[in-house]
Amino acid sequence: MPQMPSPETSDFVFNQTMLRIRDPQVSLDFYTRVLGMTLIQQLDFPEAAFSLYFLGYVREGDEPLPIDRVERTTYAFRQKAVLELTHNHGTESTPAPVYHNGNSEPRGFGHIGIAVPDVAAACRRFADLGVPFVKRPEEGRMKGLAFIADPDGYWIEILNPQSLASMV
Amino acid sequence: MPQMPSPETSDFVFNQTMLRIRDPQVSLDFYTRVLGMTLIQQLDFPEAAFSLYFLGYVREGDEPLPIDRVERTTYAFRQKAVLELTHNHGTESTPAPVYHNGNSEPRGFGHIGIAVPDVAAACRRFADLGVPFVKRPEEGRMKGLAFIADPDGYWIEILNPQSLASMV
Repeated sequence: MPQMPSPETSDFVFNQTMLRIRDPQVSLDFYTRVLGMTLIQQLDFPEAAFSLYFLGYVREGDEPLPIDRVERTTYAFRQKAVLELTHNHGTESTPAPVYHNGNSEPRGFGHIGIAVPDVAAACRRFADLGVPFVKRPEEGRMKGLAFIADPDGYWIEILNPQSLASMV
Repeated sequence: MPQMPSPETSDFVFNQTMLRIRDPQVSLDFYTRVLGMTLIQQLDFPEAAFSLYFLGYVREGDEPLPIDRVERTTYAFRQKAVLELTHNHGTESTPAPVYHNGNSEPRGFGHIGIAVPDVAAACRRFADLGVPFVKRPEEGRMKGLAFIADPDGYWIEILNPQSLASMV
């Protein structure tokens, strides 16, 4: 096991993971309606022709989302586990796919992962909602573990912590 | 703003972001010693010739890390903001770079981001530790925002929530 973390890093927070997306209308629908995230903040940079969307799970009992714009942006930047989606204006009018999901050459980034209480139930709902699967929970050796694809083809692992931990 | 999240997603957790790495010895040193994360769990799959490393910020006052192996793996899978590093055995003996960081063609994944109390102080420490910079805080239009590169060349944004929110 590694040494204790340096005290100089004691207030560091793993805030965000950034993915480029082709069409925010499609991706925001997917991440909010299908995956249940909340759009925390949208930042538009019209002169540079891009917009940023910050999403995350906001729960009852969590600190409430600030109404003030700057406070809300600050909130987005200090939470753990925020998904930042970058939209370069105009890509929504070009044919899909625009972006590379990292799982064919050249590889790199692999996936994001969502822990859920019941993989089978979550996946039945995803199937009903027309979400494409990379791996259904009953396929392959890792039963009960699934991968779905987001609208840009990025892989999203759907896992249950207890059942996955008992398999590995 | 989007509709309220479906109750069927109310216990979903954005658990992990997975990146492939060339050499775990180098990457674990970087993410623990330089960035201050804790190695929560290591899972080895010798027959499939890969290993997984789960890292995150574990703080005083957080739920303590379980000692039991399965409980500790469960813990790794139910936390927010876990970084999963995948090592395909043998890549550490091949010349770098092995993986693509998503910021040149074909683009896709962009970066992960760490919120810090003081970007200038964090970056002085990174410079002292020999970490390569993609963007130093004093460069470019976004003063006070930095990007460093991890050992595989993945970009890591170093941001301060308050100062960044006041700029955008």
